[in-house]
Amino acid sequence: MITLAFKLKDDMHIICSDLEGVWIPEIWVNVAQKTGIDELKLTTRDIKDYDELMTYRLKILKQHKITLGDIQDVIATLKPLDGALEMIKSLQAQSRLIIVSDTFLEFAQPLMKQLDYPTLFCHSLEVDDKDMIVGYKIRQPDPKRQVVKALQSLKYEVIAFGDSYNDMSMLEQAEKAFLYRPPQVVIDDYPQYPIATNYDEMKVLIESMY
Amino acid sequence: MITLAFKLKDDMHIICSDLEGVWIPEIWVNVAQKTGIDELKLTTRDIKDYDELMTYRLKILKQHKITLGDIQDVIATLKPLDGALEMIKSLQAQSRLIIVSDTFLEFAQPLMKQLDYPTLFCHSLEVDDKDMIVGYKIRQPDPKRQVVKALQSLKYEVIAFGDSYNDMSMLEQAEKAFLYRPPQVVIDDYPQYPIATNYDEMKVLIESMY
Repeated sequence: MITLAFKLKDDMHIICSDLEGVWIPEIWVNVAQKTGIDELKLTTRDIKDYDELMTYRLKILKQHKITLGDIQDVIATLKPLDGALEMIKSLQAQSRLIIVSDTFLEFAQPLMKQLDYPTLFCHSLEVDDKDMIVGYKIRQPDPKRQVVKALQSLKYEVIAFGDSYNDMSMLEQAEKAFLYRPPQVVIDDYPQYPIATNYDEMKVLIESMY
Repeated sequence: MITLAFKLKDDMHIICSDLEGVWIPEIWVNVAQKTGIDELKLTTRDIKDYDELMTYRLKILKQHKITLGDIQDVIATLKPLDGALEMIKSLQAQSRLIIVSDTFLEFAQPLMKQLDYPTLFCHSLEVDDKDMIVGYKIRQPDPKRQVVKALQSLKYEVIAFGDSYNDMSMLEQAEKAFLYRPPQVVIDDYPQYPIATNYDEMKVLIESMY
């Protein structure tokens, strides 16, 4: 008998993870840093309403005449987090992985390529014929919870993890859940979830949840 | 502006494909050939009832004392079909891909690794402590249609393709569908679907469906 290079876990599980802060760096933060435009550093911690925040960001991009191509230039210089590819492969060998993000496909795709294209469900941008970002399309309301529900309709038990408030409906809907490198405010608000702070701890936690 | 190595297609599509005959060779046929056990060559064309066929296959494996490890040995010698990895990468760069199969995870996984682990939804085996296959677990009834419905609940339009009768509920449920290298009986029974006979034709058909 051969020894397979992976140990299959209970087959009826699927893993749902966040993207930014888990596998890749925060995209807007890096775009702000690399373009030197401080207004792009604002996040949902500064402007709670997501639509208001995005409208503000698009206004700033327009003011500075920054195209989608310019932003993709910046993103193309980013790398996935150290060890992300190996960890993703390890999860894919044992189980299945769906990445669920509130980012935009046009931003994420250059980084997804570096991760060998794990399946990503996210939003997308509206771009005009001058390559200016003129809007964005949210795939559906409460998208992270809906992905977990869809996978549960396929009789999978879902193991979910993420680092921020927008992940909480996903964690709540999943059968098993934990936080990955969350900020202290999230830890304080959601004390019920175990926490992993690096990929080794992530691996141990996930293996305890199969 | 950089030129990205991919051209993103309309973002709200997702591709659902069959596995065997599309990306990898037929597993049971190859196991039958490589073990020299002719009884394993029977397919749903010979025994229409799938449960009856699988029960028969498991009986034959037991008679010949063939373990899961023995079968994985055989499968480990198989390769994906020529060009499959490149075609999968191309679809993942443009869109998203979910492979939906009636095979078993334990059989497929060595081949999925060679394809950089695209997401696969399939069934699984029950194995005893002597590594004998004693049963199988169907994830859910009508699994291929259910996957399409789940993805539609996430507001994706589904482009589906496969080669055989068990793919038809998936093709029927999808917004767009075609046959890939189907046998003549399938072509005769489902004349409404376009046909691709190689990856170049697949690419052209899919691009016409975005």
